[in-house]
Amino acid sequence: MIILGVDPGLTRCGVGVIEADASRRLSFVHVDVVRSDPHESQDLRLLNIYNGLTEKIEFFKPDTVSVERVFAQENRNTVLGTAQAAGLAMLAAAQHGIPVALHTPTEAKMAVCGNGRAEKIQVERMVARILNLNELPQPADAADALAQAICHALRPAGALQGGEREQHLTLAQRQWASAAQRAKSSHGVDRGM
Amino acid sequence: MIILGVDPGLTRCGVGVIEADASRRLSFVHVDVVRSDPHESQDLRLLNIYNGLTEKIEFFKPDTVSVERVFAQENRNTVLGTAQAAGLAMLAAAQHGIPVALHTPTEAKMAVCGNGRAEKIQVERMVARILNLNELPQPADAADALAQAICHALRPAGALQGGEREQHLTLAQRQWASAAQRAKSSHGVDRGM
Repeated sequence: MIILGVDPGLTRCGVGVIEADASRRLSFVHVDVVRSDPHESQDLRLLNIYNGLTEKIEFFKPDTVSVERVFAQENRNTVLGTAQAAGLAMLAAAQHGIPVALHTPTEAKMAVCGNGRAEKIQVERMVARILNLNELPQPADAADALAQAICHALRPAGALQGGEREQHLTLAQRQWASAAQRAKSSHGVDRGM
Repeated sequence: MIILGVDPGLTRCGVGVIEADASRRLSFVHVDVVRSDPHESQDLRLLNIYNGLTEKIEFFKPDTVSVERVFAQENRNTVLGTAQAAGLAMLAAAQHGIPVALHTPTEAKMAVCGNGRAEKIQVERMVARILNLNELPQPADAADALAQAICHALRPAGALQGGEREQHLTLAQRQWASAAQRAKSSHGVDRGM
């Protein structure tokens, strides 16, 4: 399973691609930053980021695109551009029929470092260790995109069957999850009896 | 000149199209709301809004797409979706080589009502009057998209030659504006001598 993680940004948008096998062994595929020129007009910057993300998606053909969830209370100067870049990543995935997952930065840090408030260098070191890299991922700020992909790969097995994440599944996945949920509840009732 | 105004939103995205002749007489062309289903996942909602906006742009072939400028301090529950919808409108325009203008809601109200804090019903009435409509524009919340287009059509003649809006021009327009600016400055020097 190929997972493409996105750390959204209008000036620098991190992209990290990993492969997860059936036993959740992870391997590194690609890391890069898609950039736009802050001197360009906003519409052309959005076009650049969209084109760069689309190119990555078409090249790596991921099974899931995992995008860092943006919050309104973030830095007021950059939050709108960050939200727009996240929107473009979701759009590009949806246009290619690829399911989108959203994980918070805290979830991603927790997944790679066991600490949701881990510092940047810790995240870089643990991403390198998990993916068996001989050095820290470069460019450094793209480590978050790899962490985002790792977070999705290592999510708890049951995480897809309920709660908020369910809304990001494809129709087939949702039907499957819903059937699994029904099976689980009736099993629960049986046990209760 | 055809201007397509966008009042961005993830659930309801207003689109208003007007035509402005050389003497700035304005006429009504089209008004509509592009919708997405709040029960859908966010990526599919963004795809719906993007497809709807792209359809309008390809049908009406506007000379400019005028998008309401979004601010980070707006309603926290909706601001990210609003910013993403605005981003999609800018993307769709840029993909078709159409210049994008951004005007604040205050500028739009000022342009149609002479009061930047005009109430919704005033905006609806004045939009109807300016465009010679026999009734208020329907759906009512699309009046803001028409106001956004009117605001762009009625902007001061010099507004394109300097300041913030210049960044939203195409390369050719920017070169022209810059040449005009140089001509203007040298004229100013001549007068001073």
